[in-house]
Amino acid sequence: MTEFDDATYVGADGRCRIHDGWDIGGNANGGYLLALAANGLRRVVERPDPVTITAHYLAPGQPGDAEVVGEVVKAGKRFATASGQLRAGGRPVLQVLATFGDLAAGGPGSGFTAVDGSPPVLPPMEACRPRSAREGFPVPLMDRLDVRLDPVHARFVDGAPTGRAEVAGWFAFADGRPIDTLALLLVADALPPAVFNLDLPSAWVPTVEFTVHVRAVPAPGPVRCLFRTRFVHGGMLEEDGEVWDADGTLVALSRQLALLPR
Amino acid sequence: MTEFDDATYVGADGRCRIHDGWDIGGNANGGYLLALAANGLRRVVERPDPVTITAHYLAPGQPGDAEVVGEVVKAGKRFATASGQLRAGGRPVLQVLATFGDLAAGGPGSGFTAVDGSPPVLPPMEACRPRSAREGFPVPLMDRLDVRLDPVHARFVDGAPTGRAEVAGWFAFADGRPIDTLALLLVADALPPAVFNLDLPSAWVPTVEFTVHVRAVPAPGPVRCLFRTRFVHGGMLEEDGEVWDADGTLVALSRQLALLPR
Repeated sequence: MTEFDDATYVGADGRCRIHDGWDIGGNANGGYLLALAANGLRRVVERPDPVTITAHYLAPGQPGDAEVVGEVVKAGKRFATASGQLRAGGRPVLQVLATFGDLAAGGPGSGFTAVDGSPPVLPPMEACRPRSAREGFPVPLMDRLDVRLDPVHARFVDGAPTGRAEVAGWFAFADGRPIDTLALLLVADALPPAVFNLDLPSAWVPTVEFTVHVRAVPAPGPVRCLFRTRFVHGGMLEEDGEVWDADGTLVALSRQLALLPR
Repeated sequence: MTEFDDATYVGADGRCRIHDGWDIGGNANGGYLLALAANGLRRVVERPDPVTITAHYLAPGQPGDAEVVGEVVKAGKRFATASGQLRAGGRPVLQVLATFGDLAAGGPGSGFTAVDGSPPVLPPMEACRPRSAREGFPVPLMDRLDVRLDPVHARFVDGAPTGRAEVAGWFAFADGRPIDTLALLLVADALPPAVFNLDLPSAWVPTVEFTVHVRAVPAPGPVRCLFRTRFVHGGMLEEDGEVWDADGTLVALSRQLALLPR
């Protein structure tokens, strides 16, 4: 069993554990928590792929016992929708709404294709810079993952942010686990916040809400990601993500709403 | 009472009505349904503004009796989160997850601002083209709204799509009702789909999921909107929206996942 499968395991009764070592500065990564919740909910709906999933983050995820509770809201021919929670310590950590399907099986959709975009242009993985623990706090998550940042975007680590809220890089699991649709939920939150390339007053940007659209099953190999923030005002910001597979297919779009505390 | 207030009225017991005349080709507009559900849920959480709201669309909204049911998932100092449904005919029409707050009251957020973008450049409202009933099916919704499209983007109505999935325009209520944060949920789904400017095989793009971030209380006056679709593949597409107020502030960001049936 790979580290990710172990860390996102949910029993038939919904019991699971928020595993140690998937955190950033002590709080479990939001993408990891989303994948854990999704793994519990997809068992409830009996469909493999989270096609669109939204979580509202209600409390920090601390390592320890947890459970995924949820119910089928509607089960249709192509999709099934579930509403549920990841709970720990007697309170909700994430409230989740998700629609699942079977992306590999295809469906009734039209074959019409129109794509306005392409994968981020990155140096080869070995020429990119590992996401390190040098962001001002420990990032144990990075022992599980092989995240390599575009060297230009990684300059914020040395105190030289680019001035543009953009971060691109490669993602793979450190243990070589294939990236499936569940893992894409982690991928979409695994790079440092794009706003770290601005002169932010805060190094803490807690997520309020996070939505991922999984658009296709990824081809084998590392994925390329691009995250951007365009609007920081009123103490809030959005971060938009694109994840592209080795074949150059857009496999996920993400957006989160985060806070910029004083 | 304005038409919008009347159509989104929800009693203390959650009872409401999906009003006739807010539809496109017989099905109630998705933004209208979202506003109706949000109006019911914000009563439950006792906060005025939907800061981030996601709905999964489970069944078409037909005119008639309906109800909004929901519960508070968490009530914090700044925000409160609710999960609920808009139900009609004994079944769920929308499943909704939303976090509400009080945007006018401000909050603990930083005053740090970084905006990479500006309102769409549009001809004056009177020089733009009303969204008409000439899209191949009746659009009664447009009797309630004053939606004016950029003439360039409106050419699809005459069978001459631009080839780029982009639609921009003005939005106001026909009866002059001010645009508040509840109305922004309608605004974010009131223009024709951006993909109508492609040579689509289908004129029907049903929404699976719709998320709106309300980023500020709009200043008085009409708002300017821009909607774009970048990725149509695998029978699915996203549509991203920006809504800008008369002061040039970005007041809402939206994204929906829709299907492209055969």
